[in-house]
Amino acid sequence: MYNLPMKLWQIGEFGLIEIITEFLNKSGVSNTPGHDILIGVGDDAAAWRSQGLPQLGTTDILVQDVHFSLDFITWWELGWKALAVNISDIAAMGGMPKHALVSLGLPSDTEVEQVVELYQGMAEIAKKFDLSIIGGDVIKAPLVIISPSVVGIAGNDILTRSAALPADLIAVTGYLGSSAAGLRMLQAGLEFDKETADYLRQAHLCPLPRVGEGELLAQHGVRAAIDLSDGLVADLAKICQASKVGARVMTNKVPIHPLVQAAFEQDCLRLALSGGEDYELLFTARSDVIERTQSLMSSPVTIIGEIVAEPERVTLLDEEGKVMEWEGGGWEHFRDERFA
Amino acid sequence: MYNLPMKLWQIGEFGLIEIITEFLNKSGVSNTPGHDILIGVGDDAAAWRSQGLPQLGTTDILVQDVHFSLDFITWWELGWKALAVNISDIAAMGGMPKHALVSLGLPSDTEVEQVVELYQGMAEIAKKFDLSIIGGDVIKAPLVIISPSVVGIAGNDILTRSAALPADLIAVTGYLGSSAAGLRMLQAGLEFDKETADYLRQAHLCPLPRVGEGELLAQHGVRAAIDLSDGLVADLAKICQASKVGARVMTNKVPIHPLVQAAFEQDCLRLALSGGEDYELLFTARSDVIERTQSLMSSPVTIIGEIVAEPERVTLLDEEGKVMEWEGGGWEHFRDERFA
Repeated sequence: MYNLPMKLWQIGEFGLIEIITEFLNKSGVSNTPGHDILIGVGDDAAAWRSQGLPQLGTTDILVQDVHFSLDFITWWELGWKALAVNISDIAAMGGMPKHALVSLGLPSDTEVEQVVELYQGMAEIAKKFDLSIIGGDVIKAPLVIISPSVVGIAGNDILTRSAALPADLIAVTGYLGSSAAGLRMLQAGLEFDKETADYLRQAHLCPLPRVGEGELLAQHGVRAAIDLSDGLVADLAKICQASKVGARVMTNKVPIHPLVQAAFEQDCLRLALSGGEDYELLFTARSDVIERTQSLMSSPVTIIGEIVAEPERVTLLDEEGKVMEWEGGGWEHFRDERFA
Repeated sequence: MYNLPMKLWQIGEFGLIEIITEFLNKSGVSNTPGHDILIGVGDDAAAWRSQGLPQLGTTDILVQDVHFSLDFITWWELGWKALAVNISDIAAMGGMPKHALVSLGLPSDTEVEQVVELYQGMAEIAKKFDLSIIGGDVIKAPLVIISPSVVGIAGNDILTRSAALPADLIAVTGYLGSSAAGLRMLQAGLEFDKETADYLRQAHLCPLPRVGEGELLAQHGVRAAIDLSDGLVADLAKICQASKVGARVMTNKVPIHPLVQAAFEQDCLRLALSGGEDYELLFTARSDVIERTQSLMSSPVTIIGEIVAEPERVTLLDEEGKVMEWEGGGWEHFRDERFA
């Protein structure tokens, strides 16, 4: 598929994941017979059956100066966010998080108090989502590394990236671009009124995973979902690839929070389309199913487009329905260095 | 318990783990009601009950230039070892590994071929122990980070660190100190005959977790065990602390491989007592139980001492039964910098 030798920055994160997935499938270890694996490599979380009930497992690692800067994030927020991004992967499958293991790499001159604050942040979100922290590993490292894994349970109807069908509508929970707007505020040292500053900081550093929403979707007939971690366009592209379909997005329908619109008038659409780290859910379903979820959910659900048969392409439309040129993708590891 | 503010190197890995454990227990998130947690923070793996059957989960992270050097280890060996140390934690509970999630941090200039080799090593040990690799995360990082987590299942009798009783005998599987001898050979560039060099390299870079042995121990009445990752003295001390007992070790009984004895005549006892990373099992039980395991196991089982009531102290005896002075502990993260 690729000509080796090549370096990671030449193929990017998604190219590498393709190679790894192909290797694991060919070698047979991604689906060992008798292990009752429901969903292997390539979705938000893995799923297997244990004693009849589907179990979910996920891991997302956070590394200092790649995913966060200690100049901006407090240790408490870091603990919250590290678990939040993992809980969000369980939410994207329609499951409930249950148990977390946390591996930590820390420099030797870290203050003990900072580690306690980190765990306070983790404990706070763990309590909110009824998650137990039951183990882990602590090691010395030249920079801060947090690698939680979360296991959970699901009903028999699991949300996957591969279940989108042509003519499905595409919907998202909440608002998009708020997290990226928060990151830009922090990095550029922008000043806003307190309400805006608080909202943006919270959106970027303390995202709230959509666990209840994911469960509700799974229970009411939705089958295809992903959590928005790499940005709307990039994550929707993953749905399209996994489901072998295409997508058309009406960019004027993409929900942007009024505070973000006011603070980033010029850029807010770009932030919403490719910013990433919103940890909202994107899902697709027939219109009657989407309408039902809209009436049942307390948080906003916005229809932003539709799934089409033309495979594996995300098309963006402006408010007049014309196709927009779009170069900015979402966040992809390794690949970004091309542009450095 | 500790006066904050303090830095991690002042309290060491074990001091930090104590603080984290106390915090998690106090905050209630380490044992959320209704989660059926059997064993929380503080053992080789965590255990919980799901649909009646005990489930095990563990995570051990490996960081470049802390746990391994790419000057010595091949990518294949690194993949093998990263899963081996996690599988070993499941073995130490008497369980069977089932599913692995692997988080990877890699520099952008890593060769794609190197990543494939890494997965080949992981696939090899996964096949050997009937483990599926079903998910993970790949991110850019300034150095190589591998953070696998492994979940598994166990029978109702789980091996724990806290079940050692006074008058139990202490036994170990295999040979001790071989891995540390291998590390020394690699670091110092020592030259040996091929048989010795191959044995030492294998012992350090491709350890074989004792999964079948752990299962057999659990099935035949053993209750207390730990895997030897930080060194005999350090790991036995953890059993003593968790079980509130003491231990006496006849150092002349500690099994050392003939090739290690020949290659490191002066130092082999020190390597065996505090070298670490052997991933053999240390366990304690009544003498009749130990004898039964000796007769059933194909790999060597050696009795090296006994558990005593005097709490939480490991005493080393020389061949005449005299107490030996001993300053060298085992491997402890953060703490080692004190001696830098």
